[in-house]
Amino acid sequence: MAEPFNAVDVIGHKRDGLRLTDAEIDWVIDAYTRGVVADEQMAALAMAIFLRDMERSEIARWTAAMIASGERMDFSGLSRPTADKHSTGGVGDKITLPLAPLVAVFGVAVPQLSGRGLGHTGGTLDKLESIPGWRAELTPEEMMRQLETVGAVVCQAGAGLAPADRKLYALRDVTATVESIPLIASSIMSKKIAEGTASLVLDVKCGSGAFMKDAATARALAEAMVGLGSDHGVRTVALLTEMDTPLGLTAGNALEVAESVEVLAGGGPGDVVALTIALAREMLDGAAWDAERRGDTGLAGRLREADPAAALNDGRAMDVWRAMISAQGGDPDAPLPQATATETITAETSGVVSRVDALQVGVAAWRLGAGRARKEDPVQAGAGVVLHAKPGDVVAVGAPLATLHTDEPDRFTGAKTALVGAWTIDDSAPTTATTAADAVVLDRIALD
Amino acid sequence: MAEPFNAVDVIGHKRDGLRLTDAEIDWVIDAYTRGVVADEQMAALAMAIFLRDMERSEIARWTAAMIASGERMDFSGLSRPTADKHSTGGVGDKITLPLAPLVAVFGVAVPQLSGRGLGHTGGTLDKLESIPGWRAELTPEEMMRQLETVGAVVCQAGAGLAPADRKLYALRDVTATVESIPLIASSIMSKKIAEGTASLVLDVKCGSGAFMKDAATARALAEAMVGLGSDHGVRTVALLTEMDTPLGLTAGNALEVAESVEVLAGGGPGDVVALTIALAREMLDGAAWDAERRGDTGLAGRLREADPAAALNDGRAMDVWRAMISAQGGDPDAPLPQATATETITAETSGVVSRVDALQVGVAAWRLGAGRARKEDPVQAGAGVVLHAKPGDVVAVGAPLATLHTDEPDRFTGAKTALVGAWTIDDSAPTTATTAADAVVLDRIALD
Repeated sequence: MAEPFNAVDVIGHKRDGLRLTDAEIDWVIDAYTRGVVADEQMAALAMAIFLRDMERSEIARWTAAMIASGERMDFSGLSRPTADKHSTGGVGDKITLPLAPLVAVFGVAVPQLSGRGLGHTGGTLDKLESIPGWRAELTPEEMMRQLETVGAVVCQAGAGLAPADRKLYALRDVTATVESIPLIASSIMSKKIAEGTASLVLDVKCGSGAFMKDAATARALAEAMVGLGSDHGVRTVALLTEMDTPLGLTAGNALEVAESVEVLAGGGPGDVVALTIALAREMLDGAAWDAERRGDTGLAGRLREADPAAALNDGRAMDVWRAMISAQGGDPDAPLPQATATETITAETSGVVSRVDALQVGVAAWRLGAGRARKEDPVQAGAGVVLHAKPGDVVAVGAPLATLHTDEPDRFTGAKTALVGAWTIDDSAPTTATTAADAVVLDRIALD
Repeated sequence: MAEPFNAVDVIGHKRDGLRLTDAEIDWVIDAYTRGVVADEQMAALAMAIFLRDMERSEIARWTAAMIASGERMDFSGLSRPTADKHSTGGVGDKITLPLAPLVAVFGVAVPQLSGRGLGHTGGTLDKLESIPGWRAELTPEEMMRQLETVGAVVCQAGAGLAPADRKLYALRDVTATVESIPLIASSIMSKKIAEGTASLVLDVKCGSGAFMKDAATARALAEAMVGLGSDHGVRTVALLTEMDTPLGLTAGNALEVAESVEVLAGGGPGDVVALTIALAREMLDGAAWDAERRGDTGLAGRLREADPAAALNDGRAMDVWRAMISAQGGDPDAPLPQATATETITAETSGVVSRVDALQVGVAAWRLGAGRARKEDPVQAGAGVVLHAKPGDVVAVGAPLATLHTDEPDRFTGAKTALVGAWTIDDSAPTTATTAADAVVLDRIALD
């Protein structure tokens, strides 16, 4: 059958700085999914988009075409309102683990379709898979049942959601076309919108350990995504959050599960607790919006007045966590795997810690075996970094800064190399105190 | 074996506007030839080069790396000096046919490694293949022998020359990365330098029927190529020539051979004769430079004083043409194929022709069957367009403007559609007279 467009013409239009027409966008995404537009053609188009940018309406159409390339989930049949969260990824970002059960406490369905980690930021599924018995693969029916009964689900996304994005994401990874706002925003939002949530909270991280290194770029990405969500009828809010410093005191799989359980038990590091509560507040407001839309103004009011901090302190969030882990075959009481070897690094000068570089800690955890270099690589459940000194902490010469965990001691050298200079120790007090909640959340971006 | 670079890093450097290092260029071309850099990666890099450009020294290294990807011919063992010509392609550009034998008359070796046509500009090999018995494929030994005895050879380039360019050229064709000066210049010059000539004349065409539509771009390309030739020790001169109007009165395969034979017989259209002589003059000067370098100052002097116009008029060029065709199995006396159907289009107004659009004539000839849409398509030997009125000619209503030739009469409609508005007929005289030699050659670009 004759194609309505020629790929070379479409690429040429974007190359010359033109806005692609809606019909061109619909065709090129569909033809790429069908294999009629070849990988090398999409690679050239992606580079042209990277360097020529896209208008807002163009990104919206591109996103819609990627959603249309596959299935779209539908949670409207659930008795609960839905709220979803997406993080652009950071070092020590285990927030999904306490957050999903915490929001579910209040009667919200929280479907968290997650991925595995590649590179230094780790993946939520990798973390949960360190829990004995827990499995990431659910059928759509199992997922729906768990959302209805438990409220919270963290599982693997099905291959049928936005297949064009799946293909394009892999292509961008090998063609230096990852860091493009139109391409990132449309990739994240096509998946999230296809996943069918009514409301969405975006955690857009910014800093050395994040994908977006500077606040201006992170803000532009957040604004693009909030716009795309709203265009598709999904109530979308973004929090711009700090990622120069690792979140919490752990980076690694089982290590982060253990820290999340501390938070669910009412303890845990201040920054993790603060960000969990800030994101829960946004998700509860999103779910309230959905409840109101569904005509349940009573629930909407209760969600707006809900107190997430209380649900961490009184054990309700922990109860949902245990139910969520059990429902997916995991044993919440089983001991977590521990690495067979540890090594501690210590301070060489005395003073006040002013900075712990997130990227360096992420790379160290990755080199210790917590992350993977290629998709097919396994990860070590017990590997990672435990921090003993974060910004604001006073240390003396010889005080422990971090403990490195791995099953393969020959990995210590590479991890320690990654950490050279990661701690900045000053004579005076630090200018920022990143354990305070207001220092973690930099800004809130929403249309309303 | 570990690779010294990562393709994503190299692409990213060009994407960010950096100059690629020599080592990066050498590696990426070699790795692409070996298949380690994938087509989608080279496509992204080509688009980044298109939009970010390259410095002169960067283009020189890129060209050198493409030459190094394959064999390099060597004509230094011949008793004759060598001169080569390359045209960027135009409508009715049959100049190679009279030019190669004309220059060989004076004792020069003229190796013309040519291609087949794709699109509206036609290919030299397609034209010569309309001569019964003529074959384009020669072994290197056959080519050398013919250069020594006849002096002129037009044949197909071997697959071993600049294989990286061969691969990249096909890739650019499908990824909208053709019209890039660094990529065009390095593609042409890597092939030409690998072909081993001592001196080179470039016919850089400019206008509607050419690859380069405007004079500024054509000049920039010419300057880039002259620089590259000189960097590699090849004496290189470029003529910037006019291609708003078709060259001569024919566009097609056998039709252009017949017109070339007219020129070799001392006749033919003025613009074809003028451009043939202008290019011959440059090639003779290039061969003189080579002869001098080889220590033969006597020959150098004779080449500088040679009179190419005389050799067209006195039959010496025709003698070499006949020997050249015969040496490659062709019968110079055999009647040329003729199309089975013709149709003539006529003037709708009276006046003076001020313009005949080259692109439209080229597309019409192509649609009549003279060219191919895909590499594997056949071409018709007899198909094409014969012009009866060119700029400066006076026409009355009903006077013939052109005759269309094809073996498939259902092609007439498409060809006539292509020609709508191709002739501009004014009341007054045209501002340019493109049949004069000085109007065909717009400028000369050389380092000396």
